[in-house]
Amino acid sequence: MARALQLAARGQYSAHPNPMVGCVLVNNGEVVGEGWHVRAGEAHAEINALRDAGDKARGATAYVTLEPCAHQGRTPPCADALIDAGVGKVIAAMPDPFKEVAGRGLEMLRDAGVETESGLMQAAAEELNTGFISRVAQGRPFVRLKIAASLDGAIAMESGESEWITSQEARADVQKLRARSGALMTGIGTVLADDPSLNVRAPDLDTQGLQPLRVVLDSNLRMPLTATMLTLPGHTLVCCTGDHDGSNLEEAGAEVQVFGAHGDVVNVFEVLAALAEREINDVLVEAGPLIAGYLLEKDLIDELVIYQSPHIMGSNTRGMFTTPTWTALADRRMLEIMDTRRVGNDTRITARIAG
Amino acid sequence: MARALQLAARGQYSAHPNPMVGCVLVNNGEVVGEGWHVRAGEAHAEINALRDAGDKARGATAYVTLEPCAHQGRTPPCADALIDAGVGKVIAAMPDPFKEVAGRGLEMLRDAGVETESGLMQAAAEELNTGFISRVAQGRPFVRLKIAASLDGAIAMESGESEWITSQEARADVQKLRARSGALMTGIGTVLADDPSLNVRAPDLDTQGLQPLRVVLDSNLRMPLTATMLTLPGHTLVCCTGDHDGSNLEEAGAEVQVFGAHGDVVNVFEVLAALAEREINDVLVEAGPLIAGYLLEKDLIDELVIYQSPHIMGSNTRGMFTTPTWTALADRRMLEIMDTRRVGNDTRITARIAG
Repeated sequence: MARALQLAARGQYSAHPNPMVGCVLVNNGEVVGEGWHVRAGEAHAEINALRDAGDKARGATAYVTLEPCAHQGRTPPCADALIDAGVGKVIAAMPDPFKEVAGRGLEMLRDAGVETESGLMQAAAEELNTGFISRVAQGRPFVRLKIAASLDGAIAMESGESEWITSQEARADVQKLRARSGALMTGIGTVLADDPSLNVRAPDLDTQGLQPLRVVLDSNLRMPLTATMLTLPGHTLVCCTGDHDGSNLEEAGAEVQVFGAHGDVVNVFEVLAALAEREINDVLVEAGPLIAGYLLEKDLIDELVIYQSPHIMGSNTRGMFTTPTWTALADRRMLEIMDTRRVGNDTRITARIAG
Repeated sequence: MARALQLAARGQYSAHPNPMVGCVLVNNGEVVGEGWHVRAGEAHAEINALRDAGDKARGATAYVTLEPCAHQGRTPPCADALIDAGVGKVIAAMPDPFKEVAGRGLEMLRDAGVETESGLMQAAAEELNTGFISRVAQGRPFVRLKIAASLDGAIAMESGESEWITSQEARADVQKLRARSGALMTGIGTVLADDPSLNVRAPDLDTQGLQPLRVVLDSNLRMPLTATMLTLPGHTLVCCTGDHDGSNLEEAGAEVQVFGAHGDVVNVFEVLAALAEREINDVLVEAGPLIAGYLLEKDLIDELVIYQSPHIMGSNTRGMFTTPTWTALADRRMLEIMDTRRVGNDTRITARIAG
């Protein structure tokens, strides 16, 4: 199963909106087939492994990181394929997170006389697909916030000067975060200040040609027609509120969608729900302290990835999170540190909200 | 020599103002004596090792972490003792940092027919005594700044609320930093806000009864006569400027010393020079962002020890350093991370100013 999880992870930059899945076929103690899901619309992991195994699949045990599907989706059901190939036993790491179909794949297999098991290395399998599970179970994508900051918590000088706080290696690492995300979210303030590209531009990351959806939170539709991101491959969604004429912006290549307002800003809950409807599993937020603080206050951040540079920037600076409603120590958010490692000269801290 | 360095470190809470020194005597490949310097005024490491070895010192090789002294200080010269004991060879990790006497100890030994070497594991030996070396070579103590902060760089809420940002384990670790320091420095703002004890109160740390000197930077002599620290064992030095009547404060148990002013605050350069004159090797600063920022701007911080708690405290908070003169990214200070480790639920980051 550990090998199947490794294989699954090969799809991290291209499988979405589908989950990453890996499959290993073992016959008489020997690995006879391996496969993973490369890209939505193409063959599932089980099918690739069966193809790899050929006749040796007969009587084999299939280790698969997710319960084989029982339904006709973009491709025929994998349970049928496993049955047809004569596989003797199927061990799944976790059930299908779609509640309506959970267990059906294994049931189909059992009905056909195939032995089944479920739950082997389940935690690791769930960790691999936090985004897919979040979308299916909560109706919103997994929200990951990336921040580049100094050791004393500054993301820019008061003037806005921030190039560069972190190392080139850290910025290359951010490309990986982007490539595994279905959408990249930022705010209009960042667009106006920095005119970011918000794209994946690392030739060594195989996204199968996919670019994440760019999402700009732009309550009053101030998005410039000349924004660089509108000229780049991929799709840009501008999220505004109320009555704004987005026709020029749509002509310039953006899609404009109107959402309800939450106070005087666009309702991010609605935006995230809309992204889930678009089958976005993972959203990477790269925005300023207003949006970061807003998301944190609303408990909408699932994971923080902080690139901490070994610098002290002092007090004439901008902090990571603007949190106007927090006044007491009890308002703070406790984190659970998932991983800490050196990236170039910086420290990358991956954390989740505790409890 | 590695063993001698280990032994030396046993004096970390009690040897100051003397350097930590360890000595191992080896005869025919066998360790025949070990010693370290426990406390100023008592025997040096070499003497303790010679006593431990007895007759077996004759013909032995002495590994000593610092060049043996050639002068009569609080105790007779160690070089003589090594010669008298018939030691055949002396290997020193580093020369005596007092320029006037550097090399004399080894010279005395050579003149008496003892073979000598110097420089084995010198970097580690110097690291052990950064404070002593700073005092002797620069005329000021090694300045270590301790900060407890959240992951987003806050040391308190705007209201001042800060109990507790870090874990009990982190606070226990701070006791070790205090115990190895000759002085603990804070500002009058902290005294007025928190009335800190600024003492070593960990029964498991053997300071041989010593308490670090408490130093309060108090330009306008606002120190309350009722401050808790004045009632505790140990000595409190209040540093002010200009014409203030400190007689009441002295009656209350403090020592008041007048220094020149630097702008409208007490000249910290003068304070540090005075501490060096008092044979303080290491100063631990536990102060607010004004003093921390001031010391950083003046390049007076040698080492930062940051206890970083896995919390986000947001924007209605106080930052680590107030640095009014820094406006551009180029003003920041680059750090070299020396050590990062988990202490309780927090991360302790030890860093020095780079370059």
